[in-house]
Amino acid sequence: MRVIVFGADGYLGWPTSLHLSARGHDVIAADNLIRRRWDVLCGTESLVPIASMKRRVERWKALTGREIKWEKLDLTSLADTTALITQYQPEAIVHFAEQRSAPYSMISAQHAVETQVNNVVGTLNLLFALRESAPDCHLVKLGTMGEYGTPNIDIEEGFIDIEHNGRKDRLPYPKQPGSFYHLSKVHDSHNIMFTCRVWGIRATDLNQGVVYGTGIPETDMHGELRTRFDYDDIWGTVLNRFCAQAAVGHPLTVYGKGGQTRGYLNLKDTLQCVELAMNNPVGRGKLRILNQFTELFTVNELAERVRDAARSLDLKVRIQHIANPRKELEEHYYNAKNSGLIELGLKPNLMSEQVISDMLKRVAQYKDAIDTGKILPRVAWNVG
Amino acid sequence: MRVIVFGADGYLGWPTSLHLSARGHDVIAADNLIRRRWDVLCGTESLVPIASMKRRVERWKALTGREIKWEKLDLTSLADTTALITQYQPEAIVHFAEQRSAPYSMISAQHAVETQVNNVVGTLNLLFALRESAPDCHLVKLGTMGEYGTPNIDIEEGFIDIEHNGRKDRLPYPKQPGSFYHLSKVHDSHNIMFTCRVWGIRATDLNQGVVYGTGIPETDMHGELRTRFDYDDIWGTVLNRFCAQAAVGHPLTVYGKGGQTRGYLNLKDTLQCVELAMNNPVGRGKLRILNQFTELFTVNELAERVRDAARSLDLKVRIQHIANPRKELEEHYYNAKNSGLIELGLKPNLMSEQVISDMLKRVAQYKDAIDTGKILPRVAWNVG
Repeated sequence: MRVIVFGADGYLGWPTSLHLSARGHDVIAADNLIRRRWDVLCGTESLVPIASMKRRVERWKALTGREIKWEKLDLTSLADTTALITQYQPEAIVHFAEQRSAPYSMISAQHAVETQVNNVVGTLNLLFALRESAPDCHLVKLGTMGEYGTPNIDIEEGFIDIEHNGRKDRLPYPKQPGSFYHLSKVHDSHNIMFTCRVWGIRATDLNQGVVYGTGIPETDMHGELRTRFDYDDIWGTVLNRFCAQAAVGHPLTVYGKGGQTRGYLNLKDTLQCVELAMNNPVGRGKLRILNQFTELFTVNELAERVRDAARSLDLKVRIQHIANPRKELEEHYYNAKNSGLIELGLKPNLMSEQVISDMLKRVAQYKDAIDTGKILPRVAWNVG
Repeated sequence: MRVIVFGADGYLGWPTSLHLSARGHDVIAADNLIRRRWDVLCGTESLVPIASMKRRVERWKALTGREIKWEKLDLTSLADTTALITQYQPEAIVHFAEQRSAPYSMISAQHAVETQVNNVVGTLNLLFALRESAPDCHLVKLGTMGEYGTPNIDIEEGFIDIEHNGRKDRLPYPKQPGSFYHLSKVHDSHNIMFTCRVWGIRATDLNQGVVYGTGIPETDMHGELRTRFDYDDIWGTVLNRFCAQAAVGHPLTVYGKGGQTRGYLNLKDTLQCVELAMNNPVGRGKLRILNQFTELFTVNELAERVRDAARSLDLKVRIQHIANPRKELEEHYYNAKNSGLIELGLKPNLMSEQVISDMLKRVAQYKDAIDTGKILPRVAWNVG
């Protein structure tokens, strides 16, 4: 299939590009490289060194003979976006190209505005470009489980049947996002739903949980094919961050009580899910919403798993509860459905002790590069 | 009360400023005047001639001795917004300052992006400025009944009690907006809800129906105090548009079957509602959502009412169904609650034949200025 991966320079976008290319898809990898600039601005850095996009696609071609077309492109330019889609006439689009850090979006008014404008405008431009130039193309958009918040009822996949005052309807599941970033994804979801209904856009919105992992077989083929790994307070997601903390003997920092439950999945499963969505497109005018995670954990459970895996590697690890910089429930009901992707054929790679051990070993290779001054949270949800 | 009215140059913002000033409030009227520029760009024009903001506030002072402070301000500037709020330390803010036309937002990608960026960024800046400089100020924000769409169950006021798989929660009412403009209001609503929860912002979100009317006693005091009146396809709301059509003998153009049901209210009641919300603020961290309309009508019922009122003025009026430029249900269940504002003390001015007759007479005074080339819809929700 001819597919454009937007956000192809990111933690997930790059392995997705490799995974799809390895499986015979024609991949166009597009990115504006802004994440590398945000690293400079935030004083953060991928723990695993990453090559330039140019070097990456050259190395991939040299090793496999497969070509990934690299295109520097900013989705906030409607003209450039439309031109790219017109040129390549993709059958599918995978859209990762968003500012994806909750703490980043909470730094200041400027960061909140930048996040929402970047994400909402990029997605709007993509929708208009699809309508204009590739109306039959299937959009696979990365959303987040964080759109739902933590309601006291089961979380369905995007829609819920509501009976109210003796009448029934199937309605969009209520959204209670927890940061300006998560809000931007809710805005996107509403915009996409509207264009499916009104223009006949076909889309799959993947409400993804928290991803962990250091790579996939394709990224492990060569140092220049590796994907980024973030452990800092701004970009590091919790399991990756815990592994970095364990590697340098830093306590595993649990925010608040640690009863926060979320959906998690292995990086390998992100790629499976994206490909399953792509290979099973929905019809014109349809919006399919899938919850993309394989397991639910509390933060405490994750910390305990990392501690236990670290022990078996003779790493001494302590768990420390620190003040929660976020505003969120720390003990709550959480039961989210995820049967849609399983039904499409997802075979989960679960979070075994082996998986965590392998992550710890990989991270340990780079432990001298870990800046422990970038681990504790510097951005608070509420000030003053 | 010291109140800043944002969007004070608009159809509703100006009468609101007068109404509040007449009742003893200290009013700061802020606007970036963009609506007058949009008129130039769209080739549209208020049927009722309107004076500049400077002339308006001077005339008001000359007639009543009351001062309205006029401030040219663009909410998309965080620095200007924060400075204004720091300077005046308002107890309440009334926020009308948004691009408010569904057809305008559907003209092109640029118009969709402009609408969402203008509305979302303006509101975000206002929220950050409140947090920074006036955390105790009560935000009265104009939303729209269009945020809900037309669900097959009763529409509650912002929240709905859901029982699902044996568990219960009170959740944000699901949103199904019908244009990029309506979507922008949904985005705002989610952003506001988040800041109430996380920062302790206090806010009332008024989900307003379609407003009709040519003025209020204060705008009728002098030609320079009048508010705008839009009858064209971009800015004209349905009852106002029908009155203009009746005045020039143009058929009343009903989009599609005309079974579309919406909430309506008299301009006078908008002002009552805003003042009631202002005078009954919610506590810190609370978000109150009120549905602001007084009556439900189908488009067919409105057309018949205008036809009947026109007949009694010896105007011959025909109703014509034309292809619906929008994508919406034309026959549907619609039962929206509006008890919140009634409980606060709203005394509705209902849509009597007298009210419509008075509108028709007022509009007839300007009928030579009606451009019948601007009545039929030029913007379609779906193209090609």
